[in-house]
Amino acid sequence: MSNIHEECGVFGLMAPEPIDAAGLVYYGLYALQHRGQESCGIVVNDDGLFTSHKDLGLVSEVFHKETLSSFPTGTIAVGHTRYGTTGGTNRNNCQPIEVNHQKGRMAIAHNGNLSNAAELRSELELSGAIFHTTSDTETIAYIVTRERLSAPSIEEAVSRAMNRLEGAYSLILMSPQKLIAARDPHGFRPLCYGQREDGTYCIASESCALRAVGAKFVRDIEPGEIVVFTRNGVISRKEHCGEKPKKLCIFEYIYFARPDSVIDGTSVHETRVRAAKILAREFPADADVVVGVPDSGLDAAIGFSAQSGIPYEIGLVKNKYVGRSFIAPSQDQRTDTVRIKLSPVRSVLEGKRVVLIDDSIVRGTTCRKTIQTLRDAGAREIHMRVSAPPFVAPCFYGTDIDSAENLIANRHSVAEIAREIGVDSLGYLSRESVCLLTGEDSGFCTACFGGAYPTPVPAHGEKNRFEQKIHSK
Amino acid sequence: MSNIHEECGVFGLMAPEPIDAAGLVYYGLYALQHRGQESCGIVVNDDGLFTSHKDLGLVSEVFHKETLSSFPTGTIAVGHTRYGTTGGTNRNNCQPIEVNHQKGRMAIAHNGNLSNAAELRSELELSGAIFHTTSDTETIAYIVTRERLSAPSIEEAVSRAMNRLEGAYSLILMSPQKLIAARDPHGFRPLCYGQREDGTYCIASESCALRAVGAKFVRDIEPGEIVVFTRNGVISRKEHCGEKPKKLCIFEYIYFARPDSVIDGTSVHETRVRAAKILAREFPADADVVVGVPDSGLDAAIGFSAQSGIPYEIGLVKNKYVGRSFIAPSQDQRTDTVRIKLSPVRSVLEGKRVVLIDDSIVRGTTCRKTIQTLRDAGAREIHMRVSAPPFVAPCFYGTDIDSAENLIANRHSVAEIAREIGVDSLGYLSRESVCLLTGEDSGFCTACFGGAYPTPVPAHGEKNRFEQKIHSK
Amino acid sequence: MSNIHEECGVFGLMAPEPIDAAGLVYYGLYALQHRGQESCGIVVNDDGLFTSHKDLGLVSEVFHKETLSSFPTGTIAVGHTRYGTTGGTNRNNCQPIEVNHQKGRMAIAHNGNLSNAAELRSELELSGAIFHTTSDTETIAYIVTRERLSAPSIEEAVSRAMNRLEGAYSLILMSPQKLIAARDPHGFRPLCYGQREDGTYCIASESCALRAVGAKFVRDIEPGEIVVFTRNGVISRKEHCGEKPKKLCIFEYIYFARPDSVIDGTSVHETRVRAAKILAREFPADADVVVGVPDSGLDAAIGFSAQSGIPYEIGLVKNKYVGRSFIAPSQDQRTDTVRIKLSPVRSVLEGKRVVLIDDSIVRGTTCRKTIQTLRDAGAREIHMRVSAPPFVAPCFYGTDIDSAENLIANRHSVAEIAREIGVDSLGYLSRESVCLLTGEDSGFCTACFGGAYPTPVPAHGEKNRFEQKIHSK
Amino acid sequence: MSNIHEECGVFGLMAPEPIDAAGLVYYGLYALQHRGQESCGIVVNDDGLFTSHKDLGLVSEVFHKETLSSFPTGTIAVGHTRYGTTGGTNRNNCQPIEVNHQKGRMAIAHNGNLSNAAELRSELELSGAIFHTTSDTETIAYIVTRERLSAPSIEEAVSRAMNRLEGAYSLILMSPQKLIAARDPHGFRPLCYGQREDGTYCIASESCALRAVGAKFVRDIEPGEIVVFTRNGVISRKEHCGEKPKKLCIFEYIYFARPDSVIDGTSVHETRVRAAKILAREFPADADVVVGVPDSGLDAAIGFSAQSGIPYEIGLVKNKYVGRSFIAPSQDQRTDTVRIKLSPVRSVLEGKRVVLIDDSIVRGTTCRKTIQTLRDAGAREIHMRVSAPPFVAPCFYGTDIDSAENLIANRHSVAEIAREIGVDSLGYLSRESVCLLTGEDSGFCTACFGGAYPTPVPAHGEKNRFEQKIHSK
Repeated sequence: MSNIHEECGVFGLMAPEPIDAAGLVYYGLYALQHRGQESCGIVVNDDGLFTSHKDLGLVSEVFHKETLSSFPTGTIAVGHTRYGTTGGTNRNNCQPIEVNHQKGRMAIAHNGNLSNAAELRSELELSGAIFHTTSDTETIAYIVTRERLSAPSIEEAVSRAMNRLEGAYSLILMSPQKLIAARDPHGFRPLCYGQREDGTYCIASESCALRAVGAKFVRDIEPGEIVVFTRNGVISRKEHCGEKPKKLCIFEYIYFARPDSVIDGTSVHETRVRAAKILAREFPADADVVVGVPDSGLDAAIGFSAQSGIPYEIGLVKNKYVGRSFIAPSQDQRTDTVRIKLSPVRSVLEGKRVVLIDDSIVRGTTCRKTIQTLRDAGAREIHMRVSAPPFVAPCFYGTDIDSAENLIANRHSVAEIAREIGVDSLGYLSRESVCLLTGEDSGFCTACFGGAYPTPVPAHGEKNRFEQKIHSK
Repeated sequence: MSNIHEECGVFGLMAPEPIDAAGLVYYGLYALQHRGQESCGIVVNDDGLFTSHKDLGLVSEVFHKETLSSFPTGTIAVGHTRYGTTGGTNRNNCQPIEVNHQKGRMAIAHNGNLSNAAELRSELELSGAIFHTTSDTETIAYIVTRERLSAPSIEEAVSRAMNRLEGAYSLILMSPQKLIAARDPHGFRPLCYGQREDGTYCIASESCALRAVGAKFVRDIEPGEIVVFTRNGVISRKEHCGEKPKKLCIFEYIYFARPDSVIDGTSVHETRVRAAKILAREFPADADVVVGVPDSGLDAAIGFSAQSGIPYEIGLVKNKYVGRSFIAPSQDQRTDTVRIKLSPVRSVLEGKRVVLIDDSIVRGTTCRKTIQTLRDAGAREIHMRVSAPPFVAPCFYGTDIDSAENLIANRHSVAEIAREIGVDSLGYLSRESVCLLTGEDSGFCTACFGGAYPTPVPAHGEKNRFEQKIHSK
Repeated sequence: MSNIHEECGVFGLMAPEPIDAAGLVYYGLYALQHRGQESCGIVVNDDGLFTSHKDLGLVSEVFHKETLSSFPTGTIAVGHTRYGTTGGTNRNNCQPIEVNHQKGRMAIAHNGNLSNAAELRSELELSGAIFHTTSDTETIAYIVTRERLSAPSIEEAVSRAMNRLEGAYSLILMSPQKLIAARDPHGFRPLCYGQREDGTYCIASESCALRAVGAKFVRDIEPGEIVVFTRNGVISRKEHCGEKPKKLCIFEYIYFARPDSVIDGTSVHETRVRAAKILAREFPADADVVVGVPDSGLDAAIGFSAQSGIPYEIGLVKNKYVGRSFIAPSQDQRTDTVRIKLSPVRSVLEGKRVVLIDDSIVRGTTCRKTIQTLRDAGAREIHMRVSAPPFVAPCFYGTDIDSAENLIANRHSVAEIAREIGVDSLGYLSRESVCLLTGEDSGFCTACFGGAYPTPVPAHGEKNRFEQKIHSK
Repeated sequence: MSNIHEECGVFGLMAPEPIDAAGLVYYGLYALQHRGQESCGIVVNDDGLFTSHKDLGLVSEVFHKETLSSFPTGTIAVGHTRYGTTGGTNRNNCQPIEVNHQKGRMAIAHNGNLSNAAELRSELELSGAIFHTTSDTETIAYIVTRERLSAPSIEEAVSRAMNRLEGAYSLILMSPQKLIAARDPHGFRPLCYGQREDGTYCIASESCALRAVGAKFVRDIEPGEIVVFTRNGVISRKEHCGEKPKKLCIFEYIYFARPDSVIDGTSVHETRVRAAKILAREFPADADVVVGVPDSGLDAAIGFSAQSGIPYEIGLVKNKYVGRSFIAPSQDQRTDTVRIKLSPVRSVLEGKRVVLIDDSIVRGTTCRKTIQTLRDAGAREIHMRVSAPPFVAPCFYGTDIDSAENLIANRHSVAEIAREIGVDSLGYLSRESVCLLTGEDSGFCTACFGGAYPTPVPAHGEKNRFEQKIHSK
């Protein structure tokens, strides 16, 4: 119901012998669906022969029984989910991308965004490169390919390529014989791996996807680390580790990741609870019930309730059948989408002073309607608490947080926002507190809240240079 | 995740002038989707001309943009959602059913089940009737039609037909000029109506659907009442009211209805909270956290926590993308469906004594896996509490609770079930308490928990006589 | 490319032991697809259990691999194809219709139209019947059902029902144990049966469908005959034979049937060739080439060429990919549908005097564009010859020839039509000759050419009484 | 019904002002559908912004109403149809391919096959190129791109690229401002252009597609010619013309092209008629009727009849509804696909001596069944005549004629083939005659009939090197 999006989820596996690899990746992608709903794809490697299927749509829409069963078994596979808001998206950009190069074939799944993509692309074009997609994953593929011409191995090519790449990338790369995981030196995006009882190694953006396929979590890939999975075992290369300060995207904890995931050793749910506890201290409220906006505000509502002692209640019910194919009401129907998606529980709200918890306010429109819903159900007072600071600066590392004027916090003070959305009081978690969430002092990118950018970033407006030239379906 | 199903949701409207009636019914059906996921349909009445679309599938699957926009505007309309478990269901049985008879045309949407359907059908067949469907709604249509031959009005025909019908029926009937709501004298199934600002009357199985279309709740239809909506106003006929004792299905509160609905004056969410509070007194637990099985156990978990003082937590996360098109893992993938649908939040569970709340245990298989999930995540003790009594007898009034051997409570004692599903303790709400849930002493059908059947019921095994002869797609 | 349509094709089979009956009917329906493109359906009888699938669309659209393979094997089955032009057609009207009645279950596939449908229906409604469809097949089902209440067998019920039915009906009726073929006493529509080497009997509208399923043609069902196929053999009942004069629809030969079919002993292709030979004598032309409009005019073009000695040529090529899903050009594209469907072969036409042969001119619009196409390709003269008389009266026996003003021959003389469509000369086969086509003097219904109606017909405008009340999808 | 395939059809347009370009290309592709049924695509250029849609399937399957209407208007557009036999084809290979390069964006549609594709590809890979597809069109895109780095214009880059490319290519290339047509110096594949009344230039593989969009044929593109369409007019560059001897694929006339097309000044239909006339002189037959195998043998049958004086007849009828979605009978149904696709007209065949005409015999299986069909229908003698020589050598220029053992003429003498397929006599057009077909002595590639290859060709087996490594969907 909000419009901030993570850009991707990645999943890969390497099995000791041929298995129904597409099926396993399918379940892995289901668990990562929240990281990208625009498109998805699976590539299976059957002894060097790659079979793939990619398309626009959810995992459930792109993969049907016969699609899955038409994949051969394989020992290596890689999958991807990609985000997207509206229709005009590009099927060419579906990942994993597959390319043929001089030394063979390669598939790459990428989560993140290069901050020097434009420069790299220009340089490649000047040497005669052609690009089929507008995604920086193709740029990565090129850089790796060029390094591969002289490098003794694909992992060495990846390592050399990492000298060229700046910004956020959690990569899974599949060659005819190897599966490689690589995470950028800042560690902007999460990446971890695990192992199943049958010996199959699985790499995933989040630990929840390991569990979904029956794999035990082994460990997170470190910032800057390259992990190579081959038939003969697992090799870690750490030459890029420690090159740069860790800068994990704080929004992974607050917003993007699934609450049951554990990232870099810290539980997402726990972090949300902790954020809300701090929030409850920073902006206490005198109220009767704590209600979370489902599903994004539920974890934080638990924390706020625990800290404040105000009872947690189910005051809003989400219609779980309203999905992508839902047709929004037309104006003349005098009803609205929020009304169909979200229902108040009158017996919980009537005559009550309500603390309403969510993890963000983006444009404010949906929020205003939700609050009106509570008022209509009899809420006497509404105190909104947001478990993150307001975002005010664009993100160049793999989310679509933009500095566009439609971010309400970019145009309005907190007091103005409170008036705009119609609450009795409003409090955001402070920027200071957000850095303390995991117990360390450290390690987060908070650029979107006004912190420093960890890398040089493109001049404003360049972010989508390629997108503007192309509009494919 | 359970296999007990409500059989239907009904929705109807009458507008003062032609509106996008199909669009409104569409939103109404979205709000009633939980009452039936097998098939759905809409019939719009445009000045006596009926336009319909019905098919197997969810509302989102059956109705697309162009389907909706191909409906004409109309002043009366009726819609239906129907339940279903597996594939081999019958498109002929989609509702609302539409028939032509001597006095014109009629559409009927029905929630419930006649307990004398077989007798009525035999009698009709002997007089030369042919049946296209296996549903008792067609029997109702016949009875109304035959009465209509001599009755002065359609509502009088409905009233006379009610003398013949036994069992559960909440009906919406549309004739060329009228919209009629009728509820059986026992009031087994809910039915209510409301009005929009533009004057449109809306009838719905649950109040949540009124809100979804922007209508204000007016009141419940009383058991035995017939309400006739015409261009000239609303007429209530109460000749069947009080004929029989009220016997609302207790499972509507505990299980079927949406928590934000209010049925016969009582909040569903509130009733669930109350049930769990009684349960907490009947079967207290010494534990660290209360966790509800999403989504069915969440309301009750709130109640158990409130009564016991044990903190409510989010210990299980449901994957909201897993829907009808999800493909279950094959055996050789060594993973399972529950693992993909439901994830534990380890930081909440590890080392904890957990009270796990759900509203029922049907076959026990899913439950056992859920409990294993908690154990794997480190739960130290698990105390399961079920917010309803075990069901032990088949239902003949519109749900698919059957006495079949696969109901775990039919074959096992509570102690055996506890062992079977692997919990440290297990408690069900007592049958005595369930009758006290709404504050009155009264008014519930509890036959499935071993109570008396309010009407004569068919000899065992006859329930599905017609189904067995037919298997269509 | 014309808009006169046959209303149906029927197919049935009875096998000595369970076979993939749905598969065989599927091939039979493919061969009868030309008789109806609106909807189709198959019902398989597996030892009394009926399984069916019916939907709007071509056989190729309605039946996919998994649909077919989900049918059980069976010993009896029946299928149907139904015609239709545009979108707003009714899924309820898909055949075979299946009904439950007092003595069991029955499926009926019907080709034809009752001329006393309205009377029968009124009578049934007055006795409390309800109708789900607008098709007269349901009326037939009712009449048979009512007779069945007292008749000792289903075939006796069919025989008694035939006393009540007037008009055109070639029926296939399936009961739990029997397959019955019945043809009305006038024999308006064709019906025949054959046998496969494995002993399976097949009934079909046209002999081409017997061959498609590997069955040898046995014989035509006679007008008025009832043929009963049971496990114990084939029984012919002739009590209605000879009751009325034979009145086979002449358009079956000229237009509807496939050229490779043989109806009542006469080859369709041969009849078309013979018609064109007579035409060539009645309206000779001084020309260089004979060109048929594909595909409808090709057989006749052979005959005209043979009689006249003018060489047959391929002067027009049809784009075989243009089907139902073709999207017509919009006005601003300055192109037209005929241009895409039909191409001239310039080398055949340039500078030539062309005889253009088709089997009818309906509205004249397509014809005019086709002739313009020939002119643009350099044809010097165009002499159009039509291998049937102009139709001027509506048909009540199973085609959609209507007396509507859009039939060009209803508003214009032959000379006017010639001017309108832009030909140098125009000749239609005479009404006298059409009766001589098969060598007998006799036996045809020529009502649409202005001949007498073989039965009383409804007052004008009543033809579609029920259609007007209903518009379903 | 045969398994030799052309590899592509191309279509492009340039309009003086924005038009519904996608719509026009759609009709053009419909007319070129016979040249490729595997996949198709359209790219529209709206003032430099490219919008595309490409997918596996027929034009009717890939482009629906909403797909077409979601394209913007544009002044330049290009489309492609691609052939394919079975399922496992690659969506990545859909054309037109679109690439971004240093000077902007480019779309290319290609008909043909490079005979030096492997060498060019290796060379490119060694310089760090990555390939997304297995098609040589991407190789062409690379070569053009690299030349473009230093060339002053896109057309100059195309011209320079032509120095590198060997083999067959009829190209349409679209840049932000220009539309370019180029045909290889041998002129293996046809290419022509025309103009509509509104000034729009259209380029197409065959003239039939010009007519379909309402364009007047202007002229063929010459072998070696580059024609550049810009806003300012049409420029022809002939620096490659005459570089090499003309070698038009003879199979375009005999087999691939539509009969209503005119290629390099000669009518396809006329050429087929002429071939059959020569054939009738080379292999006369003493017979009663001439029957063509629909649709491939019909044109030739006309010629054989005209030369021999034996009457042309319609002895076989093709079921026009049997398309891609037809499900072949399983073995146990004791029927076969040929029986459903092709029906004999008994009245034409019974007791007759038949000359059966087709344009090729590939594996012989279908042919044998067709001949059995004629025998079953009573044909007394069958004399098969094939209007082309047998093919015995693989094609490297854009068709899938392979030297594989399943080509019957590769393993058998003519006498053996006659026995194998069951005919009384068999005659093929001689290789000598085929060169005389168009009146000139000249200008054909007849390599597949055993003639010399016009260019160096890859060592045997290399043809599909890339295909073997990849199997995508």
